[in-house]
Amino acid sequence: MCNACVIENVKATMLSRRSLFQGAAMAGAASVASGLVSARPALAEASGRVIDLTHAYDGSFPTFDGNPGIIMEPNVVFSESGYQLLELTIFEHTGTHIDAPLHFSEDGASVDELDPQRLMCPLCVVDISAKAAEDANAMVEAEDIEAWISANGDIPAGACVAMHSGWAAKVGMEEYRNTPEGAFAFPGFSTSATDMLAEMDVACIGVDTLSLDPGNSADFAVHYSWLPGGRYGIENLKNLDQMPATGATVFVGAPTHKRGTGGPARVLAVV
Amino acid sequence: MCNACVIENVKATMLSRRSLFQGAAMAGAASVASGLVSARPALAEASGRVIDLTHAYDGSFPTFDGNPGIIMEPNVVFSESGYQLLELTIFEHTGTHIDAPLHFSEDGASVDELDPQRLMCPLCVVDISAKAAEDANAMVEAEDIEAWISANGDIPAGACVAMHSGWAAKVGMEEYRNTPEGAFAFPGFSTSATDMLAEMDVACIGVDTLSLDPGNSADFAVHYSWLPGGRYGIENLKNLDQMPATGATVFVGAPTHKRGTGGPARVLAVV
Repeated sequence: MCNACVIENVKATMLSRRSLFQGAAMAGAASVASGLVSARPALAEASGRVIDLTHAYDGSFPTFDGNPGIIMEPNVVFSESGYQLLELTIFEHTGTHIDAPLHFSEDGASVDELDPQRLMCPLCVVDISAKAAEDANAMVEAEDIEAWISANGDIPAGACVAMHSGWAAKVGMEEYRNTPEGAFAFPGFSTSATDMLAEMDVACIGVDTLSLDPGNSADFAVHYSWLPGGRYGIENLKNLDQMPATGATVFVGAPTHKRGTGGPARVLAVV
Repeated sequence: MCNACVIENVKATMLSRRSLFQGAAMAGAASVASGLVSARPALAEASGRVIDLTHAYDGSFPTFDGNPGIIMEPNVVFSESGYQLLELTIFEHTGTHIDAPLHFSEDGASVDELDPQRLMCPLCVVDISAKAAEDANAMVEAEDIEAWISANGDIPAGACVAMHSGWAAKVGMEEYRNTPEGAFAFPGFSTSATDMLAEMDVACIGVDTLSLDPGNSADFAVHYSWLPGGRYGIENLKNLDQMPATGATVFVGAPTHKRGTGGPARVLAVV
């Protein structure tokens, strides 16, 4: 899936981008410190209704590698002990989950190190469901971001920019992950879009598919450029079809196991 | 920890309480449906600042049974594959975590079945740190709730009522869990308080200790009465000393593994 050749190509690309991303990250830190990053206006206008963007999941939930992402076994049994609990074996990147910088970098921020201020985000939903219906590997491109801005105004610093491709409705079906021939096929972001979003100090990108990159990606270019810059991603979102393009606030319940590369998260939107 | 004798005693108590709790649960469902349960006023007045109520944790985090609550092992290694992820073994009730109804009932709601509308809660913080400094097994009693209401006004339906005992500061120390002689000792709720809160249609109770019941509890009376009524609990909260008694809104990032009895959760407050 990730061979040395791909990595070398990606590293070369990353080097040329690094100064841009570092600049953006520092600008981001400064704006957080000055209080410019805030979802407060959206919250003030909120109805207080919660929309759950999180799939419930078990070992049958689709995963990138095709193996069960969670195994659940009884640890304490009610009939014996009067209470009960499960032992969970979780491969971090399953269900609706976070990709932390450490997932695609050797020493990036781990999931417990994400800034809590960046877990409450104005939500911007980019709807590419029409083109995804035509092309299973459709991507959010720079022009989709430009069109969104023309229609809805600027993307705020600290935002969560989420791709709505319509894929969440396929989650129980083979086509959530594959073509009938078994090749990976699902929508994702292109770096033409994520490079723009990095400059805007966006906190995270989200997808309603298995991966930030589209299924036919050969180089995981979005993973390798977006995450090591200190930003995070959310995969396998649902209910984006119920969300407005702008005006909602999302709370990202990232897990806090130390030095984690990501993991299952509860993602709740307030409209 | 839970022997048959204790369970029989508790069952007898539960039977006498059941009609009260069922009535309260139905009233709760009705008020949710009619939109009466809302943290919206607090959100409208919020600064948009997030305070993280969640401990980061690893296998050294204190647990009720004394065994490591999480084991983390490399599953994919960066130097070999160009990305990395961990395999986690988690015993559900570790770190800052949810107790779902199913934890202390045979067939109650599981953690993935909690109503998302009940995961955004007006936060009411009951400070018992003064009496907890004198008595490690101090409890939130009915009179503490009454005093809170006298000082701060009614507790809203759908609230999260959290005990601030000062225990979060002890999390790295033996006294988070035990007396020097090795007996369980930490503050918790009493049923005199939780019976009142159930009638008020409170969504959840939270503690900055290992358990909803105090350390010296012989019968887990709060677990057995609060949880099976369809309500949930949050254990091992932190940063409650930074929270106002009233006016904040809490987002409870409960996990969504199917039929779970609870599990690690991200809990974020907005002030």
